[in-house]
Amino acid sequence: VAMAQSDIVLVYGGKGALGSAVVSHMRSKSLSVISVDFAVNDEAQHNVLITAGTSWEEQCHQITTGVRDILKDNKLRAIFCVAGGWAGGNAASDECIKNADMMMQQSVWTSFNAARLASLTLADGGLLVLSAAAPAVAGTPGMMGYGAAKAAVLQLTKSLACEDSGMPAGSRAFAILPVTLDTPNNRKYMSGADFSKWTPLSFVADLFFEQAFGDSPFPNGAHVKLVTENSETQTVLL
Amino acid sequence: VAMAQSDIVLVYGGKGALGSAVVSHMRSKSLSVISVDFAVNDEAQHNVLITAGTSWEEQCHQITTGVRDILKDNKLRAIFCVAGGWAGGNAASDECIKNADMMMQQSVWTSFNAARLASLTLADGGLLVLSAAAPAVAGTPGMMGYGAAKAAVLQLTKSLACEDSGMPAGSRAFAILPVTLDTPNNRKYMSGADFSKWTPLSFVADLFFEQAFGDSPFPNGAHVKLVTENSETQTVLL
Repeated sequence: VAMAQSDIVLVYGGKGALGSAVVSHMRSKSLSVISVDFAVNDEAQHNVLITAGTSWEEQCHQITTGVRDILKDNKLRAIFCVAGGWAGGNAASDECIKNADMMMQQSVWTSFNAARLASLTLADGGLLVLSAAAPAVAGTPGMMGYGAAKAAVLQLTKSLACEDSGMPAGSRAFAILPVTLDTPNNRKYMSGADFSKWTPLSFVADLFFEQAFGDSPFPNGAHVKLVTENSETQTVLL
Repeated sequence: VAMAQSDIVLVYGGKGALGSAVVSHMRSKSLSVISVDFAVNDEAQHNVLITAGTSWEEQCHQITTGVRDILKDNKLRAIFCVAGGWAGGNAASDECIKNADMMMQQSVWTSFNAARLASLTLADGGLLVLSAAAPAVAGTPGMMGYGAAKAAVLQLTKSLACEDSGMPAGSRAFAILPVTLDTPNNRKYMSGADFSKWTPLSFVADLFFEQAFGDSPFPNGAHVKLVTENSETQTVLL
């Protein structure tokens, strides 16, 4: 795998379960890593912290300012936006709106902030990855906010791949659509599940590296479903 | 057209261009109309006002409380959510995040609030209509927030049509996907356009009435594109 001009990558949500795995993997490849999150990831060379409870615009301002202060004249080779979360609730749930609000903040705000950051700091030919979810291609009655937020991310991915999206020349964007990621929290809350159908975080981290630096890139705007069976994961372009 | 049990309908965004047309049309059919908006629509029998600048949860609370105070033991025959707006901007626009935030508030907040309201106040067999947009089925690079918000509305519509969505028994939801509505604002800002391809508000208002009270209902969860050519509008199920 040939190393491209910039060896700096950014992980948005770098302190979460997937984010931490991606930070570790990129570090193991001798890359310089910026983590963006509410808390510090000590493994990353640089951390940009977001203040919880602030507005969408303020969070974007904190990120773009913080990252540009670190980069100076450099550009990022890749932005991996793996920020997100999960909350359930149908229309009859008293938590419907509260949870939809949270999902929009965790998935839509972060994805747009990552796109905005890409327009400002991603190198020509660089990569932006967003995190959607496989269930969001159909209805998700038990998790309405989650599904709608991820559908917005999927459509944003399409927009970013269009001409005049504001993305740097030759750059690409794609979205991953996991079914279930094999995280500690998922093991805790779904302890009776069949883990052989869950996607290992190491697979995702390696996929990101190969997509940023390898020579078999997904088409710009791709929706990449992660399908794991018998502990083997395949990528399926939707 | 047979009149169903409840003759009370609600127009969310009832003071806007499309909302006002829907309120007028429903009044002309001797229906009782509740308008929900930031300002009063004098033509509606009842108005529930939302306070601008409040949170999503607070706006939903104002709406559900206000509507239930009016309805008492009655239920709504239909909820027409036509709240919304438009703002442009790609990822390179300084207004990208500000406009995306506004689009989420105007389309996603309102659609979820309408769904929540439906779960609480819509009659069994009643109708919920949401407002999406035809361009949002593909990428929308010049209006990223708008497209993503409308994509979220489209996915929410699918969720509402699923079993266990929390919607009342036998109720239906569908989304309209206009290309361009023939509103005063659109005439003002796109004065050189071919108006024969714009969908008249009267068509939409009549469609809503027929769908709420007529005997040719769209399937639950339908995405209904409004295609106008030579001043003739057709509905196309996507």
